[in-house]
Amino acid sequence: MNAQTIENKYRSLKEKSGTHSPSLASIQEFIPDLKIKVDACFLSNPYATELFLEYFKKEMIDTGKINALLEFYPSQNNVIAGFIEKRLNIDEGHVFVGNGAIEAIQAIIHNYCEGKLMITIPTFSAYYEYAISEQEVVHYQLNKAENYRLDITDYIKQVEKEKPNTIVLINPNNPDGGYIKYDDLLFALDKLSWVKNIIIDESFIHFAYEDSDMELKSVVPNVINKDNVYVIKSMSKDFGIAGVRCGYAIMAKQKVQDLLKNGYLWNSNGLAEYFFRLYARQDFLDRYDLVRRKYITEALFFISELNQIKNIKVYPSRANFVLIELLNGANTTDVTAKLIANHGVYVRNCDDKIGLEGQFIRVAARSQKENKIIIKAIKEVIEG
Amino acid sequence: MNAQTIENKYRSLKEKSGTHSPSLASIQEFIPDLKIKVDACFLSNPYATELFLEYFKKEMIDTGKINALLEFYPSQNNVIAGFIEKRLNIDEGHVFVGNGAIEAIQAIIHNYCEGKLMITIPTFSAYYEYAISEQEVVHYQLNKAENYRLDITDYIKQVEKEKPNTIVLINPNNPDGGYIKYDDLLFALDKLSWVKNIIIDESFIHFAYEDSDMELKSVVPNVINKDNVYVIKSMSKDFGIAGVRCGYAIMAKQKVQDLLKNGYLWNSNGLAEYFFRLYARQDFLDRYDLVRRKYITEALFFISELNQIKNIKVYPSRANFVLIELLNGANTTDVTAKLIANHGVYVRNCDDKIGLEGQFIRVAARSQKENKIIIKAIKEVIEG
Repeated sequence: MNAQTIENKYRSLKEKSGTHSPSLASIQEFIPDLKIKVDACFLSNPYATELFLEYFKKEMIDTGKINALLEFYPSQNNVIAGFIEKRLNIDEGHVFVGNGAIEAIQAIIHNYCEGKLMITIPTFSAYYEYAISEQEVVHYQLNKAENYRLDITDYIKQVEKEKPNTIVLINPNNPDGGYIKYDDLLFALDKLSWVKNIIIDESFIHFAYEDSDMELKSVVPNVINKDNVYVIKSMSKDFGIAGVRCGYAIMAKQKVQDLLKNGYLWNSNGLAEYFFRLYARQDFLDRYDLVRRKYITEALFFISELNQIKNIKVYPSRANFVLIELLNGANTTDVTAKLIANHGVYVRNCDDKIGLEGQFIRVAARSQKENKIIIKAIKEVIEG
Repeated sequence: MNAQTIENKYRSLKEKSGTHSPSLASIQEFIPDLKIKVDACFLSNPYATELFLEYFKKEMIDTGKINALLEFYPSQNNVIAGFIEKRLNIDEGHVFVGNGAIEAIQAIIHNYCEGKLMITIPTFSAYYEYAISEQEVVHYQLNKAENYRLDITDYIKQVEKEKPNTIVLINPNNPDGGYIKYDDLLFALDKLSWVKNIIIDESFIHFAYEDSDMELKSVVPNVINKDNVYVIKSMSKDFGIAGVRCGYAIMAKQKVQDLLKNGYLWNSNGLAEYFFRLYARQDFLDRYDLVRRKYITEALFFISELNQIKNIKVYPSRANFVLIELLNGANTTDVTAKLIANHGVYVRNCDDKIGLEGQFIRVAARSQKENKIIIKAIKEVIEG
């Protein structure tokens, strides 16, 4: 199959796939001849995956403990929450464990966020898609002229004007990687303390940094006693274990209790329980922090290389991905199709994302070796 | 630690554990000296577990595919539903995949069952515990004098009198294993076709039989076009894979669509996707059916042995467990504690189950070898 045929096949698949980009698996099922070399849609730290696999192999597979993991019921929600509370050094009862962060998002939006939700756009689509028909979604459009960076003063003003029941801030934001500085976020939380529900999604916070120390800086310690704040945390990205399905939300104890009163008791699988037990272990965390920093450093270099490519604009990001605008009339689907067909590099075609004006792709940092392939591919497709 | 100390420790743990029996894991954490030889609480086919582990080792571990299973996002709900629809030979769009059957139960009860729920008791507690405060739960008490067997005529009469929005029938029922014959169930479905929601839970149906052919007889083909019927199916029991967390519900296409419109898109983990792919494969199913029949046969023999023990009453069961009433003043917690302390046999203490009058334990059939240990232990504790 030649590159042109692959390109055409990608285009027709894209047309059929609605508001989500086609998954790598569906592309490969649809175009079996296609060899994907790098999945640059996939927002995860590959070194953290390696680390987890090393532990999993040593502790679960080589010992045969995997058998019990598969056979027996995992622990209940509150037991697994205990490992997370230990890790975060917070009071017990504040953690709701989800089957992926997405389940925690769904539980919060469906149970606590009646009325008006204010969602910044562009953003992760679940926050508006999971709103049910009785809920009203209003958008806060991030400003393209300011590189989609949140202007905290303007944001506060708009929230005061719209008076929503619920606001959502993803930090760093997806798809642009825009980062709200720690102090700015605390300032906003203070000014907006009257809002009934404030959801802070820190799913990409392990990739962000305030300065070159690259310390991990989460708002959890500052909001643990604020009953109206929820902090969402996916584990799939920073730990590179999307197949495990585990995440959590920090919220008021009473809200956790209410959710567990009528559901969610047995929503972790054996893999997730194993992961959260690791998450509370210092030996694992010490090694994890090394691969976190290594990956951030490489991502920084990767972004600086992307910045040197002509005819694109790379938006400032403090996450493990960048939003790239194609300039001079280039088209998103064209570029995505050519990257996949000629170079086996799969990037996120952003033409379904609401709140973006222009032609955008999102590119994830992968391993050092893969980053080189991505750079070369984009250079060739864009610069010709 | 002597048997008396273990017995006392079990008693104090039981007191603290509320409406659910303490899990094996919490018992072992609380009494580290205790050696559990047989977990006769655990309602699963150990031969099916062995079969799954054989496939999993060969196809996932030995090939290294486990790595991708852990790293990448599994498929979306409707893709995995496709494997189940293929297996059941039903139209696409009728399957809602759950993170365990329990998630499907929660989704149905919270989204479709407003108003009055009629729950037969004794039964699996989630059906009444997951009802939210706006819902009214009324009980249909199964008659002890009739061995807790459902009298279908009386049941229909009571439903007509109470006019609930939702009725639930678990077949075979937990904790007694009472079986509603296929024709009786179809008769009831016909007479009660006006009920807004009819939930049939077939989580234990693979262990039931109409006659010595031991054919698997599910109502799914008969109800697929009835928009008011839901069929719940756990995979944990018959396939012995509780750690995987996978189950599903069959329901009207429109209801599946409504649930997926605002949630549940990514609720299967990599293990669950692997399992459901197996579930659609004939080579796996053929081998599974052999271990299903082997296990039923052994369970039949096990129950006939239990029937010969004095001072207990074994209730008629067509599942892989039996409800046992302790006679002549014996006490449930005493007997459970002695079984665990003196014999390492853990049985389900049923004193938290509503709708049972008397002193009851529930005992699961395990492997042939384990069944012998259970029989010997009960004999010694009961007959002295």
